Amino acid sequence: MADVQILTETDLKKLVPLDLEAVQCVEDAFAALAGGKVVMPPILRLDIAEANGEVDVKTAYVPGLDSFAIKMSPGFFDNPKIGLASTNGLMVVLSAKTGLLEALLLDNGYLTDVRTAAAGAVAARHLSRENSESAAIIGAGMQAKLQLEALALVRPIKKAVIWARDRDRAEDLARHASQKLKIAALVASSPEAAVRGADIIVTTTPATEPLVLADWIAPGQHVTAMGSDAGHKNEIDPALVKKADLYVADRLSQTRLLGELHHAIKTGLVDEQDSFAELGDVIAGTATGRTSQTQITFADLTGTGVQDTAIATLARTRAQQSGAGTLFQT
Amino acid sequence: MADVQILTETDLKKLVPLDLEAVQCVEDAFAALAGGKVVMPPILRLDIAEANGEVDVKTAYVPGLDSFAIKMSPGFFDNPKIGLASTNGLMVVLSAKTGLLEALLLDNGYLTDVRTAAAGAVAARHLSRENSESAAIIGAGMQAKLQLEALALVRPIKKAVIWARDRDRAEDLARHASQKLKIAALVASSPEAAVRGADIIVTTTPATEPLVLADWIAPGQHVTAMGSDAGHKNEIDPALVKKADLYVADRLSQTRLLGELHHAIKTGLVDEQDSFAELGDVIAGTATGRTSQTQITFADLTGTGVQDTAIATLARTRAQQSGAGTLFQT
Repeated sequence: MADVQILTETDLKKLVPLDLEAVQCVEDAFAALAGGKVVMPPILRLDIAEANGEVDVKTAYVPGLDSFAIKMSPGFFDNPKIGLASTNGLMVVLSAKTGLLEALLLDNGYLTDVRTAAAGAVAARHLSRENSESAAIIGAGMQAKLQLEALALVRPIKKAVIWARDRDRAEDLARHASQKLKIAALVASSPEAAVRGADIIVTTTPATEPLVLADWIAPGQHVTAMGSDAGHKNEIDPALVKKADLYVADRLSQTRLLGELHHAIKTGLVDEQDSFAELGDVIAGTATGRTSQTQITFADLTGTGVQDTAIATLARTRAQQSGAGTLFQT
Repeated sequence: MADVQILTETDLKKLVPLDLEAVQCVEDAFAALAGGKVVMPPILRLDIAEANGEVDVKTAYVPGLDSFAIKMSPGFFDNPKIGLASTNGLMVVLSAKTGLLEALLLDNGYLTDVRTAAAGAVAARHLSRENSESAAIIGAGMQAKLQLEALALVRPIKKAVIWARDRDRAEDLARHASQKLKIAALVASSPEAAVRGADIIVTTTPATEPLVLADWIAPGQHVTAMGSDAGHKNEIDPALVKKADLYVADRLSQTRLLGELHHAIKTGLVDEQDSFAELGDVIAGTATGRTSQTQITFADLTGTGVQDTAIATLARTRAQQSGAGTLFQT
């Protein structure tokens, strides 16, 4: 076997910051998905109830990329009690021509954070109004922070309003955002107060009941829900799927099972067979995006293997160019 | 993140030879599967048609084991044209309590070879006649070799008859077997000549049409089919499922889709809902195994994630005890 390239979280944070190139990389991956030649099997999921843990395994083959990633994302939700992060994980990069192991990206979930936030930026770039200046962020975790940073890469964001169950964490995020992004950042006293009047709304929580009601959403607003990656998770009032002028899935086969759409189907608002555009279709121009300043748009992001393969390939290519990481002799 | 233990194929060959302990380890895993507390999701499979390649990802959580494995098995069947092995792969070992990465087993498929052969031994131990002295081996690849070695661990094998499409390879295997196992090893001119009169028959090919006919199988014989791990593969005449006194699946939900049973269902010989014992049930005593010298028994092995978690845990435990491998600082 040839040598295996090993990249640590520290290496990867240097190699793949959340920037416009990362956003473009993920956008290209979604566009490839629209071409119909990507192979992306259903997510493998293992639940370990005794440990309040779960692992998702995602993968995708993208024609034109010489490698593909298999990503393992564990979430063990009692970890914080013993001082560990809940989420971890790694990506394994294999040759798409021979299946040989090429690289191990020991990122502890960092690349997932980046590709997830980048997808939020891609959704905003293609669905929100170009002149969007204000963002409402629901949640105050890592994705809340990164989604806001990602929005600022693609839209002229001047103001963010943050709501989270834990007000202290919302305050921390507001402070961080105002310093790092040089924008006005406020904490809202309710989700409604955050959402009303924002140009772009991003929900980033593991909520299992809607936090954002359809009634609050007004013409011109764009909503991205990225918290739900499992059937029981639900951030947005299912009625928004009907109210929105344009509902867009990252992958329709996934959002029917895991996304906000799942709840609209469950409550009978939408039929299981109803068809909706995918983000890749909008990027590729095979589906129509926003066509007016007054439409309501709604992006439902569950996370796809194609994003993992794209970001892993970017990381590996840059590591090879810069000589980063360790070559492990087998 | 804590240090990650990396074990290479060379390390793993020393740590986990195919021996009775490996057989027992896999037997215990099957017994655990029968307890109903193992969590084993369906196999994730990615096909890369352009490269004549595929990847299977398997995993299982076994209560009582502190770790679990996620195994990636690529098979790229044009690799031999460029001097590479068709199959490769690795196992990732995660903590079942925290999800943290514990070890990377860069085995190039070696542990899969061992646990697959060990399952053959487990099937023979519980289903073949105790006095089985002769084996028919169909195929002459790595599994043909290892299945024969595994049989010799659990039954007093004195003679092997080998048939393979490539007679030279069959001759090579016969030479190897007679030297290593000190048994009589012959090459048969047809599958039928190999099968007739053997106490135990093991098929180890990627055949897509039956190589062994039900008519050839006589009272007292035991058949293990381990070649099929995909819907289109088929080594055994589907009629044997009906003719056998006892058909046993490694995992019924898998053999209905991927095993020999799949073809018996497809041809209408067996109903999709028909229930059969699993190997773990026979081991645990909750299903009846062979009860006479004249029964025909048939084990259908598709390969299970529980075997991977078991063998990976064995490898890791032994590596920790002996200080084998490399500790990679992250």
